[in-house]
Amino acid sequence: MTPNPTACLLVIGNEVLSGRTQDANIKFLATRLGEIGIPLREVRIIPDVAETIIATVNAVRPMFDHVFTTGGIGPTHDDITSECVAAAFGVPWEPHPEAWARMERHYKPGEFNPARQRMATMPRGASLIDNAISIAPGFTIGNVHVMAGVPRIMQSMFDTLAPRLAGGPPIVARAVHALGLAEGRIADGLAAIQGRYPGLDVGSYPYYRASGNGVAIVAKGPDPAAAEAAIAEVTALMQALGHAPIQGEPPV
Amino acid sequence: MTPNPTACLLVIGNEVLSGRTQDANIKFLATRLGEIGIPLREVRIIPDVAETIIATVNAVRPMFDHVFTTGGIGPTHDDITSECVAAAFGVPWEPHPEAWARMERHYKPGEFNPARQRMATMPRGASLIDNAISIAPGFTIGNVHVMAGVPRIMQSMFDTLAPRLAGGPPIVARAVHALGLAEGRIADGLAAIQGRYPGLDVGSYPYYRASGNGVAIVAKGPDPAAAEAAIAEVTALMQALGHAPIQGEPPV
Repeated sequence: MTPNPTACLLVIGNEVLSGRTQDANIKFLATRLGEIGIPLREVRIIPDVAETIIATVNAVRPMFDHVFTTGGIGPTHDDITSECVAAAFGVPWEPHPEAWARMERHYKPGEFNPARQRMATMPRGASLIDNAISIAPGFTIGNVHVMAGVPRIMQSMFDTLAPRLAGGPPIVARAVHALGLAEGRIADGLAAIQGRYPGLDVGSYPYYRASGNGVAIVAKGPDPAAAEAAIAEVTALMQALGHAPIQGEPPV
Repeated sequence: MTPNPTACLLVIGNEVLSGRTQDANIKFLATRLGEIGIPLREVRIIPDVAETIIATVNAVRPMFDHVFTTGGIGPTHDDITSECVAAAFGVPWEPHPEAWARMERHYKPGEFNPARQRMATMPRGASLIDNAISIAPGFTIGNVHVMAGVPRIMQSMFDTLAPRLAGGPPIVARAVHALGLAEGRIADGLAAIQGRYPGLDVGSYPYYRASGNGVAIVAKGPDPAAAEAAIAEVTALMQALGHAPIQGEPPV
């Protein structure tokens, strides 16, 4: 079986690092990328600092099949993602003819000012990623996909982008949970099950809810039959420990 | 002025990368670290893969004054943070006498099994980070602080740890916002203001709310007087553009 292609996400911007903003993009992209079989393998949240952005883009683009970025493509001085990606690829940062023409038409005479012109300036060779919300597009260069940080704009850009990406089999998850079960009691048996299913990630997640505490076991991978077989073994293990397992994730 | 010490956070675990879990630790730590003057400068979310954890710990510990990790210190097979940190430091991973004695007392005879013993096994030279919720401690080795992934346990560990950390002046934020203002109109003036306050991060954040769209400008740094002066200049800039600025962040 060909391994799935992999993804890395760079969240660019000071607002998540300062605690001002709760990130809303990681979970969306993690979920959607899993569905198209390009599992997210790493996320880096980095500040609006040119040398950090350039070095990070160049560190990760050979490590993963796809690199997605969010944030830093607006018109203000702290929006430097686009010029940094050009620097990382060693190509000129120049007006993109199609983006430029589109934005020039969009704004009233005199309003397509230098700040807004920056949003139509891109690494040479970039292809546009349109979105249904704003006139300013994202872009792809090489295996790097540059998207907005505002969640609804980013989501619309990802809808445009997803059909262009060659994915693998979807990553599916199967789960079972048991109230009152401690991780420390199931750990040894669980390690043995993980050992029998090397193509799956078998994860153990304690939960603490008003309705009770317990542990959820999740098996994830591209092979649904394997995930179901592993969860059946976990279910039997929970029963052998005297618990009454419940299929699926615990209710939120 | 001595620059503030810096922090990096490693979020270790497949559950955020798969989209199963919405991270709840980054915003907490970003906020608390800013308050004690150790601003968070980078976050990496990485999977439960030994070579990735070891390489990442060793990549970031010389780059930042403090490295915090969350996740991967429970009793199950996917909890490998502790042994990976030992490998990163090149020290033995061995029973920690105090943690071991405490956990042995805590469990009933026969229940301190090999899986739970792993939670009392740490890099040689680690000092414990206690918490008020669970018997299993985190630990510090060198400039790396290893904490639980479950938010309320992590938060309790951070409460224990924070007084031990030598911070700098708190990072403060001042903000102003204006309804109906487009980023593209304020961008040039804002860049000039950022240029006059090199010790601050001046960020521009568009917002889209039921009550209206607009832009919020936030000035952050260790000098409250500078942040207030910068925001006063932004306020005047907004007024000059014909808007009625409102001090502070827009209501959620």
